[in-house]
Amino acid sequence: MTARDPLLEALRALVGEANVLVAEADTAPYVRDWRGQYPGRARAVVRPGSTAEVSAVVKLCAREGVAIVPQGGNTGLVGASTPDASGREVVLSVLRMNRVRRVDAVDNTMTVEAGAVLRAVQDEALRHERLFPLSLAAEGSATIGGNLATNAGGEQVLRYGNTRDLVLGIEAVLADGRVLDLLSPLRKDNTGYALRDLLVGSEGTLAIITAATLKLFARPREQVTLWASLESPARAVELLGRLRTHLGERVTAFEIMGREAVVQVERHIEGARVPLGAAPWSVLAEISETAPGTPLRSLAETTLAGALEDGIVADVALAESLAQAESMWHIRDHVPEAQTREGASIKHDISVPVSRIAEFIEEAGRELREAIPGARLVTFGHVGDGNLHYNLTRPAAGDDSAFLAEAHRVHEIVYRHVARLGGSISAEHGIGRAKQEAFLRYKNPVAVDVMRAVKRVLDPANLLNPGRLLPLEEAGPNGPWRQTLPPAAPPTGSQRQPEKP
Amino acid sequence: MTARDPLLEALRALVGEANVLVAEADTAPYVRDWRGQYPGRARAVVRPGSTAEVSAVVKLCAREGVAIVPQGGNTGLVGASTPDASGREVVLSVLRMNRVRRVDAVDNTMTVEAGAVLRAVQDEALRHERLFPLSLAAEGSATIGGNLATNAGGEQVLRYGNTRDLVLGIEAVLADGRVLDLLSPLRKDNTGYALRDLLVGSEGTLAIITAATLKLFARPREQVTLWASLESPARAVELLGRLRTHLGERVTAFEIMGREAVVQVERHIEGARVPLGAAPWSVLAEISETAPGTPLRSLAETTLAGALEDGIVADVALAESLAQAESMWHIRDHVPEAQTREGASIKHDISVPVSRIAEFIEEAGRELREAIPGARLVTFGHVGDGNLHYNLTRPAAGDDSAFLAEAHRVHEIVYRHVARLGGSISAEHGIGRAKQEAFLRYKNPVAVDVMRAVKRVLDPANLLNPGRLLPLEEAGPNGPWRQTLPPAAPPTGSQRQPEKP
Repeated sequence: MTARDPLLEALRALVGEANVLVAEADTAPYVRDWRGQYPGRARAVVRPGSTAEVSAVVKLCAREGVAIVPQGGNTGLVGASTPDASGREVVLSVLRMNRVRRVDAVDNTMTVEAGAVLRAVQDEALRHERLFPLSLAAEGSATIGGNLATNAGGEQVLRYGNTRDLVLGIEAVLADGRVLDLLSPLRKDNTGYALRDLLVGSEGTLAIITAATLKLFARPREQVTLWASLESPARAVELLGRLRTHLGERVTAFEIMGREAVVQVERHIEGARVPLGAAPWSVLAEISETAPGTPLRSLAETTLAGALEDGIVADVALAESLAQAESMWHIRDHVPEAQTREGASIKHDISVPVSRIAEFIEEAGRELREAIPGARLVTFGHVGDGNLHYNLTRPAAGDDSAFLAEAHRVHEIVYRHVARLGGSISAEHGIGRAKQEAFLRYKNPVAVDVMRAVKRVLDPANLLNPGRLLPLEEAGPNGPWRQTLPPAAPPTGSQRQPEKP
Repeated sequence: MTARDPLLEALRALVGEANVLVAEADTAPYVRDWRGQYPGRARAVVRPGSTAEVSAVVKLCAREGVAIVPQGGNTGLVGASTPDASGREVVLSVLRMNRVRRVDAVDNTMTVEAGAVLRAVQDEALRHERLFPLSLAAEGSATIGGNLATNAGGEQVLRYGNTRDLVLGIEAVLADGRVLDLLSPLRKDNTGYALRDLLVGSEGTLAIITAATLKLFARPREQVTLWASLESPARAVELLGRLRTHLGERVTAFEIMGREAVVQVERHIEGARVPLGAAPWSVLAEISETAPGTPLRSLAETTLAGALEDGIVADVALAESLAQAESMWHIRDHVPEAQTREGASIKHDISVPVSRIAEFIEEAGRELREAIPGARLVTFGHVGDGNLHYNLTRPAAGDDSAFLAEAHRVHEIVYRHVARLGGSISAEHGIGRAKQEAFLRYKNPVAVDVMRAVKRVLDPANLLNPGRLLPLEEAGPNGPWRQTLPPAAPPTGSQRQPEKP
């Protein structure tokens, strides 16, 4: 922390004095996640302005054996983008690298640097009459680099896929400082292993993503936004099937909310007006048409009339204006905030096969209600992806800390049902530090072993975001990684790794 | 090759006598690629009937240090699926593993074994009123396992993506025989590195894919197939843009053919009737609608009338029946066969950014015409993906072998233009043995180095399809792989690997 630290001097020589932050007031926004669950300290926050500077910083830190925590907008939810409490880690912020390098309306691509904020990327696409469909609550501060590093999901995955599906090429700095330039607008390129896809979603543990070539899409010309009330999650799955049968892949969003989620929004969020009142279950769906001249609204109305008649939905309202559509989305987007105001909560970001959503909600819910009497289930999420934000708010009369003391037991119940149904304990937020224990318990141990091997070979000194995603391990004869795949000799059987607390 | 070979005895004990082929007559279909460019010999062809048997075979071969060549339908074009001439390699054919394990119409998924033939998978999807959109000329014998191992492309990539985009989960046997079970119908799962995507397209060099969970799509209800004649490739790119502007993502195929391609089909393929005669350039396009009640044909007609009026197309014909549509596809699908009948040819499977297609065709063509006077350029391919099958037929008055002697020079010219425009020397066929030299010359050397590192850690003894994709290297102190990323110490700079002939 002193001005005489030779590492800091060397960093300043690489990126300029103003871009090496050490004072507590300067580093504060970078060393703490926004939920405040992982307060940390950094030896320095370094803000390189170019890929070459990132490369130089990584080479320096590699030489000095200093661990790097890559960071974009610092909106992650699993403790993967902030330093630990040791004060030994360097945060590498890509926020200064936010240029749009190129937009090509024929290739339908945009090449941007990692620090570009998602909303700025969306806006740039719109200026070219194109859509960049990644859309999530933190889009005003989340960066493309972070979206890529975590394979971010969001509200349009149903139609356009996760971030990994939206990227054609990437540029990244490897653990040894070399630049891996795979920027490319090509739609087809079968020259070797899918390194791009491997780095996307690796949470900064295999390389530092510095830029990307993104796919652009046709901008929707017309959208229908609707709100429906339904009896059960099973009906929501039926409604989704019905919409897809009649509207094909025009269904671009399909969000479910349980009664408690909507009630909390009505209670805490100013100006929130729930279209049909708090039904047992509500669906917010969006239908989009990219071509002119199709009778989208009448197609939607006919389909929904049929769903009403057949008892799939109890009631339905179509937004009559952009303002009404925004007011519907306002409710959905404020569920997390309302939940925060309601009191302590225990959260999950799980997925199960779409066909098992109803079963999951029914059976996990039954067990949780017995285990924690009075706890309120706040269920909402992306039905078409099988992705539920399956949260519990403490009992109305309860006490925050007593409730939070149950977190481990609650997770265990939820993840047990998820595992039984072939689901995932982290659908879109990633592993980081927050979900490492559950990851090691529920992920296929052979897969974890292969991941360790890949990490070991791409980051042999374990200096890129160490201890995130994969756990830290004691050093051995082969470096800081336990040797699980011995070289040139066939291992026997699968070796389940012990869990770390 | 003798009955006393203890390896063969052990293999027979694992998969049954009938499934270990050694007689030349029995192994013949497995040891030669279908173009006949890589005749080889096998120590045995093993046909396991289950994932457990694949695992047992791989464990045995790993113990004995025997290399394995995984094989599906053996329709590959780059020499990646057949044994070398040594007679030491074992071919592992997955053809007996062809069960559909499960179809789920709610999850829109199908889980199939690797040996299932692509057409059987398409048909199974149709039986459930769903579409599995992968479509390519060899679909009657190519298997899903091979499609996955090569990340196959084809005619619907424009709308649905490559094979990697069509798979949710895979099951594979690792080099040490362990089963990596990542079968899953989940649309969202951010638990660790993208091992699925890494194995897809790895050409059998990292693991043997034994099964997959595939995405199913809504089945199109209506299709418009059209044939257009145009002045230039630039006009074709314009037409594609126009169609997409007015029809959104309903454009599901967009194929271009140069005059020579069409002329050769007319000359050699019985029953081929070119709708508008051999124009300078022809486009075959398909527009699909998954929802009922949209006026697809009239939308298409209006759009095409505008394109005619604006001089983008010279003439256009819409198929009036399924038979007419099939007759259009018949022409496109028989370009390769016609070319074979016309005489010797030198072929490429390249891609460039869509925005550079016209420039590539213009400039590579000019240089080739000067270099090989009289050579006929047979250009066809998938404009929307920037993927051209850019081939040369020998001069009409020429001699096959004199022409083929120019292959290296021709490749050099073509790949130089591809590289200049940021393209790929293998858009969909992969590397195998055929394109290894070009791969090592044109692929980013840092990327090749990372691929070597990944291969080394996942297949340390180099027994899975050795010498395909990545070249064989001399053994060193660290096994058969040159150590390019030393453990726990930062390497300096990038090391370009020497090329192998």
